[in-house]
Amino acid sequence: MPALITLLTDFGVADGYVGIMKGVIRGIAPSVQIVDLSHEVAPQDIRAGALILRSAVPFFPRETVYVAVVDPGVGSARAAVVVRSRRGSFFVGPDNGLLTPAVEADGGAVGIWRIENPAYIRSMVSQTFHGRDVFAPAAAHLVTGAAAERFGTGLPSLTPLALPEPERAATRVRGEVIYVDRFGNLVTNISQSDLDAVATTGVSVSMPNVPDVPYVTAYAHAAPNAPLAIINSWGLLEIAVRDGNAARQLGAAQGAVVTVSQRAAS
Amino acid sequence: MPALITLLTDFGVADGYVGIMKGVIRGIAPSVQIVDLSHEVAPQDIRAGALILRSAVPFFPRETVYVAVVDPGVGSARAAVVVRSRRGSFFVGPDNGLLTPAVEADGGAVGIWRIENPAYIRSMVSQTFHGRDVFAPAAAHLVTGAAAERFGTGLPSLTPLALPEPERAATRVRGEVIYVDRFGNLVTNISQSDLDAVATTGVSVSMPNVPDVPYVTAYAHAAPNAPLAIINSWGLLEIAVRDGNAARQLGAAQGAVVTVSQRAAS
Amino acid sequence: MPALITLLTDFGVADGYVGIMKGVIRGIAPSVQIVDLSHEVAPQDIRAGALILRSAVPFFPRETVYVAVVDPGVGSARAAVVVRSRRGSFFVGPDNGLLTPAVEADGGAVGIWRIENPAYIRSMVSQTFHGRDVFAPAAAHLVTGAAAERFGTGLPSLTPLALPEPERAATRVRGEVIYVDRFGNLVTNISQSDLDAVATTGVSVSMPNVPDVPYVTAYAHAAPNAPLAIINSWGLLEIAVRDGNAARQLGAAQGAVVTVSQRAAS
Repeated sequence: MPALITLLTDFGVADGYVGIMKGVIRGIAPSVQIVDLSHEVAPQDIRAGALILRSAVPFFPRETVYVAVVDPGVGSARAAVVVRSRRGSFFVGPDNGLLTPAVEADGGAVGIWRIENPAYIRSMVSQTFHGRDVFAPAAAHLVTGAAAERFGTGLPSLTPLALPEPERAATRVRGEVIYVDRFGNLVTNISQSDLDAVATTGVSVSMPNVPDVPYVTAYAHAAPNAPLAIINSWGLLEIAVRDGNAARQLGAAQGAVVTVSQRAAS
Repeated sequence: MPALITLLTDFGVADGYVGIMKGVIRGIAPSVQIVDLSHEVAPQDIRAGALILRSAVPFFPRETVYVAVVDPGVGSARAAVVVRSRRGSFFVGPDNGLLTPAVEADGGAVGIWRIENPAYIRSMVSQTFHGRDVFAPAAAHLVTGAAAERFGTGLPSLTPLALPEPERAATRVRGEVIYVDRFGNLVTNISQSDLDAVATTGVSVSMPNVPDVPYVTAYAHAAPNAPLAIINSWGLLEIAVRDGNAARQLGAAQGAVVTVSQRAAS
Repeated sequence: MPALITLLTDFGVADGYVGIMKGVIRGIAPSVQIVDLSHEVAPQDIRAGALILRSAVPFFPRETVYVAVVDPGVGSARAAVVVRSRRGSFFVGPDNGLLTPAVEADGGAVGIWRIENPAYIRSMVSQTFHGRDVFAPAAAHLVTGAAAERFGTGLPSLTPLALPEPERAATRVRGEVIYVDRFGNLVTNISQSDLDAVATTGVSVSMPNVPDVPYVTAYAHAAPNAPLAIINSWGLLEIAVRDGNAARQLGAAQGAVVTVSQRAAS
């Protein structure tokens, strides 16, 4: 099976930065497969990058090398790291919380090493583009067989990422929108198990300006241009508008409160 | 020759959905080549997706597997299908018209099967992301040799896609803009053969607000910032503005009427 | 080592044009690796395309085939060319200045040939899409071993590209913004060696509306939301705003003047 590297950045694809990372990778590991996860993370939005990366990990082969670069601290003292997960994947990027949820979703870290060994990075490291000079070569060397232990000093743990947790009560859970996708879908931090805990029969979903959002099991079950609530592909409750853009139509954004209650018997 | 899968969706590339489809594909068919056709189809614009897919098919090797997902009916009763074309390609996607023009351009269907066999889809199928759970694994299994007949029940025909036809008269053809590309070029449904039928000597092209658009054989033959009509790379008449954006400059969009007449002798 | 083709265009990725180029390439050279450098060059902005291409070349393996298509003169008399550089790479595209800085950065041209041989282009060449009909097949034939000499007539030199040069004086250099990237960073034509010539101790950077921009060695050394000057990953002086967008925040664009002076002793 050919080695596989995935890339996630906030670099966009207009300026050639991502292509350059691939040039560096192919110079070291010419036959590796490279998959783009996203390069349109909002600039320096570590949380959005972390959520996208976490959502992808369960769907890739074991031993994938995930490179992620959303790195407002480039050139500062933040560590550049290689992480090996319990499931056997590698994660390469800045230690600023970006990798942490994905590593946890992949079974947790079994090893974390700083990227310090000059054999595995470019000889000239720029002040602004560690994607090219540090993370791309590190990932390429990993897939050609470099042992993670040889990259540098071990670290005991990754920087955590503060993700808001829903407030859970007996018959109610109060969460919030944590991500808005390209369709304007409002992804919350409320999971299927939160719903199951609230009610086994039926739930009522509400937002401040939308008192009763129908909970459905397919977009097509809602009326056109009407809001709906659904468990999305991340396994999280999402507020959407059928054939429309919920963020725009409901005037809602990241942080908006969403409440799920037991549906009253009717 | 390595197997080749193309992907066309309306998912955008910001949220990681396309990368996840590639992860699923590579888990089943690690060495397949994957080519992105477009992921920027306007959300749920089946017609735009169908036109882009049709435009691409003549330029790919035989036996390519084309995956297309513009799927407002995901989770509803619409069929998920695998189609084999006369030319030997496979098409994988929802049966909502999206695949139909491309299959016709590829010689027509020689077989259509629903994707039902659990051996060829993910064990957990989400309500919202059949690109990941149904279409990506189906395509990957096709390239690893699964027989299309084994995917499920056969279907007699694909759902047709209503594309507007130009009105043809002896010395005139009246068509409309069916697609606007990234340059603002206005692609019509008028073909080279329509032009040939109107006149062998010279044609006059007009739009409601633009009485006489020069018909040229190269963008460079028009004046800078002036409108022009040209046969484009899809083989269709297109209204463009040299070094400019025709959609913006002429205030025209999908549905705008374009008329071609015999040029009066001068 | 598998052959490698890079692609840079102003086609965008919405309309399928880039995917079609890849289909043509894979029909001729099925196993080649393809890397996208950028397809979001502003329409017909030859200079932006040339700068991105030049920035990428030092980071790719020797013998890479670089295809670049920003081609307002498509269908006119401008030459389509294959260029071999001293470093051993090939460049394929229109001879309109787009390739010139990259070829110079790769050691200069050791051969330039027009693409004329019908064996290496599509039999039907459209009036509007030489990326598909001329440049993609030419590049694919190069990687499968076609000799560059066989493509067509030799040319003595490439069309030059006029790039503004900074004005250098003993204790001052006056340059300008030549590129604005996706983060809103303002890239100037002032290099590290210009800075070294101005002062070995400290420099003062100014723009018309921003009298004193701190010169730093990492984004993180500036105050949040404050402007800074830094040598960027292209090796050029860049004006940025930490955690912000300099172009928007400073109201500056391509052509804005940037001056670097010796810092007065304090």
